[in-house]
Amino acid sequence: MQLTQEQLEQFERDGYVFIPDLFSAEEIAVMKGEVPALFAQDRPENVRERVSGKVRTNFAAHTYNDVYRKVSRHPRLIGPAQQLLGGPVYIHQFKINGKAAFDGDVWQWHQDYGTWQADDQMPEPRAMNFAVYLDEVNEYNGPLMLIPGSHRKGAIPAAHDLSTTSYPLWVINNDTIRQLVAEGGIVAPKGGPGSALFFHGCIVHGSTSNMSPWDRWVVYVTANRTDNAIRQFKRPEYIAHRDFTPIELESDDCLLTHRRSAAE
Amino acid sequence: MQLTQEQLEQFERDGYVFIPDLFSAEEIAVMKGEVPALFAQDRPENVRERVSGKVRTNFAAHTYNDVYRKVSRHPRLIGPAQQLLGGPVYIHQFKINGKAAFDGDVWQWHQDYGTWQADDQMPEPRAMNFAVYLDEVNEYNGPLMLIPGSHRKGAIPAAHDLSTTSYPLWVINNDTIRQLVAEGGIVAPKGGPGSALFFHGCIVHGSTSNMSPWDRWVVYVTANRTDNAIRQFKRPEYIAHRDFTPIELESDDCLLTHRRSAAE
Repeated sequence: MQLTQEQLEQFERDGYVFIPDLFSAEEIAVMKGEVPALFAQDRPENVRERVSGKVRTNFAAHTYNDVYRKVSRHPRLIGPAQQLLGGPVYIHQFKINGKAAFDGDVWQWHQDYGTWQADDQMPEPRAMNFAVYLDEVNEYNGPLMLIPGSHRKGAIPAAHDLSTTSYPLWVINNDTIRQLVAEGGIVAPKGGPGSALFFHGCIVHGSTSNMSPWDRWVVYVTANRTDNAIRQFKRPEYIAHRDFTPIELESDDCLLTHRRSAAE
Repeated sequence: MQLTQEQLEQFERDGYVFIPDLFSAEEIAVMKGEVPALFAQDRPENVRERVSGKVRTNFAAHTYNDVYRKVSRHPRLIGPAQQLLGGPVYIHQFKINGKAAFDGDVWQWHQDYGTWQADDQMPEPRAMNFAVYLDEVNEYNGPLMLIPGSHRKGAIPAAHDLSTTSYPLWVINNDTIRQLVAEGGIVAPKGGPGSALFFHGCIVHGSTSNMSPWDRWVVYVTANRTDNAIRQFKRPEYIAHRDFTPIELESDDCLLTHRRSAAE
């Protein structure tokens, strides 16, 4: 799959492209079916909420789960990523983020590249994210909020926040956010399961808590250009991968094929 | 001012009525002009945020500020309140809620009548709230979320939460919220300054934190029927009033008249 010229221009200008229904209900059912078993595992790849103990983030499922290995090589995700980054890519990070109903924590305003640069010594912001919604994302269950155009500022100085949330993060100060929002506003792309959001590694984003009774599970993947591989291995390998082999694509129907094989 | 038959039926069915632009920009400017001086006062009526020290709620301004005395007697607010409650009313509580940009705290799911009953011994849920938006309320600055129809359950058992937020609250458990939302969904009425929201004392509501750079100040007033006056005076008088005299209405242009008098 390839993005249109209009989508490429939107990504350049706004720092994101949102595509509703990129995956079918059947494909999402295959992905979602793996989640309870993944989250039930007692392993360091499962990061849990401070208070409730529920899984907030599962890392690197593509290295130990066959369905998510296929997701990480899916042409509808990796095709656009190669196109947007202009070359072959590898997976820098792969996570399933389960913002739980009622007690999902906030993510303060930040750029992902801030972390990749500071912790992983990624040379340039030639990496990006894509998010696949496993659940409906609406205004009530803590959707990702983006500041359009903020990626054009490049890497913004940030402070290391170890206390506010469950996971250490390089967060951006309020005066900067105020200025960026005055220029670009805020958007929170909402859509049903199967929707996908492609966003730049430098776009400033965050999310509020989830007070609704609706869980909000999203697969977040970071694709990095193979010639932009990280140079420091401070973080665990399951958080910042060290296999820089270019991804080879699966077939477009790989998730449906998986289901049929499993049913046999 | 009187609500239409359709609005009365909506309040009966859903537990709320939202009226965009009930007050003009000029009237809101008069109200908002008083806020900085009110919030700057060092008095118990100003309740502050846990972390930042910013004012989260100012109580009882109608007893020591002439503009808010007029708001508390305004025919566009008290007229509908008398109509919805079916008799003369007095002000049970009057507050300006300043949910500050970046650090505004959450309000867990609750019914206001839970507090009025438990703490104030208010005999029946014959009281209601109206909210006047001093700022734009949008999906990003922690809007009030309501569960339509939840008021028809009457008083729901609740637990006293003294820890989660800055202000003690009788909160409702997650299983009940899940069921109520399955029946009625969630709404968050959004609108510009001057919009007004009338809502039932038993409607379940809450709000998330405000991560946006936009303050969100709202005037919240509780009107109670004079024959339903509270019987216990445990809370400070500035939080649960003890003057049960029926409100006499000001003229419809009282806020504009105030401005002209002040300018002379």
